[in-house]
Amino acid sequence: MTSWIDDPAFAADKPFGPQTLPYGVVAEGVAVRVGDRALPLGPLAAAFDDDLRPLLTAPNLDALLAAGPAEWKRVRARVRELVTAGTAPEGAALVPVDTARMPFTVADYVDFYSSRDHAENVGRMFRPNAEPLLPNWTHLPVGYHGRAGTVYVSGTDIVRPHGQRAGEDGPVFGPSVRLDIEAEIGFVCGGAVAGRVSASAAPDHVFGLVTVNDWSARDIQAWEYVPLGPFLGKSFATSVGAWITPLEAFAAARVPVNASGKLLDYLVEDQPWGLDIAIEVVWNGTVVSRPPFRTMAYSFAQQLAHMTVNGATVRPGDLFASGTVSGPEKDQRGSFLELSWNGTEPVAVGGEKRTFLEDGDTVTITATAPGPDGSVVGLSEVTGTVVAAG
Amino acid sequence: MTSWIDDPAFAADKPFGPQTLPYGVVAEGVAVRVGDRALPLGPLAAAFDDDLRPLLTAPNLDALLAAGPAEWKRVRARVRELVTAGTAPEGAALVPVDTARMPFTVADYVDFYSSRDHAENVGRMFRPNAEPLLPNWTHLPVGYHGRAGTVYVSGTDIVRPHGQRAGEDGPVFGPSVRLDIEAEIGFVCGGAVAGRVSASAAPDHVFGLVTVNDWSARDIQAWEYVPLGPFLGKSFATSVGAWITPLEAFAAARVPVNASGKLLDYLVEDQPWGLDIAIEVVWNGTVVSRPPFRTMAYSFAQQLAHMTVNGATVRPGDLFASGTVSGPEKDQRGSFLELSWNGTEPVAVGGEKRTFLEDGDTVTITATAPGPDGSVVGLSEVTGTVVAAG
Repeated sequence: MTSWIDDPAFAADKPFGPQTLPYGVVAEGVAVRVGDRALPLGPLAAAFDDDLRPLLTAPNLDALLAAGPAEWKRVRARVRELVTAGTAPEGAALVPVDTARMPFTVADYVDFYSSRDHAENVGRMFRPNAEPLLPNWTHLPVGYHGRAGTVYVSGTDIVRPHGQRAGEDGPVFGPSVRLDIEAEIGFVCGGAVAGRVSASAAPDHVFGLVTVNDWSARDIQAWEYVPLGPFLGKSFATSVGAWITPLEAFAAARVPVNASGKLLDYLVEDQPWGLDIAIEVVWNGTVVSRPPFRTMAYSFAQQLAHMTVNGATVRPGDLFASGTVSGPEKDQRGSFLELSWNGTEPVAVGGEKRTFLEDGDTVTITATAPGPDGSVVGLSEVTGTVVAAG
Repeated sequence: MTSWIDDPAFAADKPFGPQTLPYGVVAEGVAVRVGDRALPLGPLAAAFDDDLRPLLTAPNLDALLAAGPAEWKRVRARVRELVTAGTAPEGAALVPVDTARMPFTVADYVDFYSSRDHAENVGRMFRPNAEPLLPNWTHLPVGYHGRAGTVYVSGTDIVRPHGQRAGEDGPVFGPSVRLDIEAEIGFVCGGAVAGRVSASAAPDHVFGLVTVNDWSARDIQAWEYVPLGPFLGKSFATSVGAWITPLEAFAAARVPVNASGKLLDYLVEDQPWGLDIAIEVVWNGTVVSRPPFRTMAYSFAQQLAHMTVNGATVRPGDLFASGTVSGPEKDQRGSFLELSWNGTEPVAVGGEKRTFLEDGDTVTITATAPGPDGSVVGLSEVTGTVVAAG
């Protein structure tokens, strides 16, 4: 490659080469990630068609998200030309990647529950005398709405939440004693506001993918969640990666979903949108799990078709997450609840044995997928450090 | 009264007299409701202090919500002076009240479940062999996040949702056959973004109140809701009244909440924020229920304290609703599920016997409360008509 960006991290065999080109927002505005640095696009706006320029000089990605798939394709094609050219375009200046802030305004946030292994693990732990899967699970992607206002960008400290948990003589109040993670993949929506999006039209409404850590206070959740679902056990914080990798970058990663059984027509995909994404969960520097996203039972296209089949609209900035990704093997589980089997089987973290999160712990989730022509496509890390309850 | 607004509906013994003064948005912009008409405030901005003018010339109420309680008080005091003056301020022009559109941008939407009678009714119907209340109910205001993007202004048609429901041989798909209402009171948040708002500070973060109809597809909900709570059975539509009655107008309506038992400290109110609001549910012109809001077991102050006790922030535009309001008497139930006892006891609606909603049905919810000096304070109606599934 003869790009003016002479950086070994900006290469086809690295996660953030020219095959990936995720978007984010740095101090200078909208930017694209090239290797381990960021290229602000605002100063290069003159190199784009007139109608695309406002998308690149905007304060964040909201305008680009709203623009729709035709514009996404045109912007990406031109960005790729600019970053792979032999000489730098006028105004180009690379900046550190780690100054990225929250790249878009979250409209609605939905979290699904689409890993069969995760759902079965949870069922076995909490309903040991019953079928691990509830009857609806194999017929629809179970999900619920989360709190959009507490979705934070990677790097944000996570304050241990206070809340109620069950005690021997009624509930007790205090900092959560079972703070956990959920390793997930998130889908950032864009394009026209639409109701009832079919599975085949779903890609026109998904701008790109981010890593997600849906921090979870298991003790709070267990006490509160009947009958209306998780609330304060989740709403204190959800972290997302700072860089959104466009859906277009995942063309070579597509696989059939690990289907759960016979589905109603509106959930049948006419093209496979399972994705062969390899996730890695790092706890204080130790890789504790490698959840395989290809084992998920519902794709983002099926999730979006389900979410809108009742006429609910999807808007630019809507974020939906896959649900905890867990594979069939123990070292593929995407939560510490499962890795430690509800705290009964401590996990080796460096030289220690651990169950749930302690103050000062840092968890980092990264992901990669096959790219075109043997390249690798990356999802930027989502990381966060637990700080003591205030 | 000698107001220049010479209208019998703008009187102390009527819901929208000078004691009420709800805010909304009409074609002309931000407005206040006076009797059965609206007074746009933008043209009167010169009559307000400089720093308040942008709040009144804005396209909707978002800026006013964000301004905070000191500004809310100042704007309301000046509005009251202007509408009760003997002569009209320059630029004043009354317009029809029914052109009002969605008055603010919904940030996060949370729905609670704080009526004991409602929770017990649901428990008796669906878990007949168990205690009607689940163990957590008396210790915290159970709630969940709903879909902010499908909160609609009063008058919006409600399209019957499609979805999955349980059948004899697995799920079947089609238009909901058990479409229902939930009569609720909603609280619109404003002021500074804040985490952990105490019950005593809650009024500083609540701008005002609206009527809410949380349309519910009971068949979809029943099949989907385990274990993560309601999702598509609710997310197709939630309707809110077009005019927000300021919290300040409810000073004379305050009563102790109908407490559920001994509460943890963070849920104890140091001042009572129960509200003596009388709700009326009208189905195709027939009053079918009069739910008494004073019977609720948790106040908005307790709900907001709970919602943020884990550190979750509250933002301007956040909307939270009380949950279905049902009183102890049959004709005080706030859903048709309860009124018809799960469809087994049809309700007289005009000359017909009815259980759930049919296409063409219109439901209107109104509410009033005691105002100062024997006056009455109104909440604007929330109305909607069911149209056939598309």
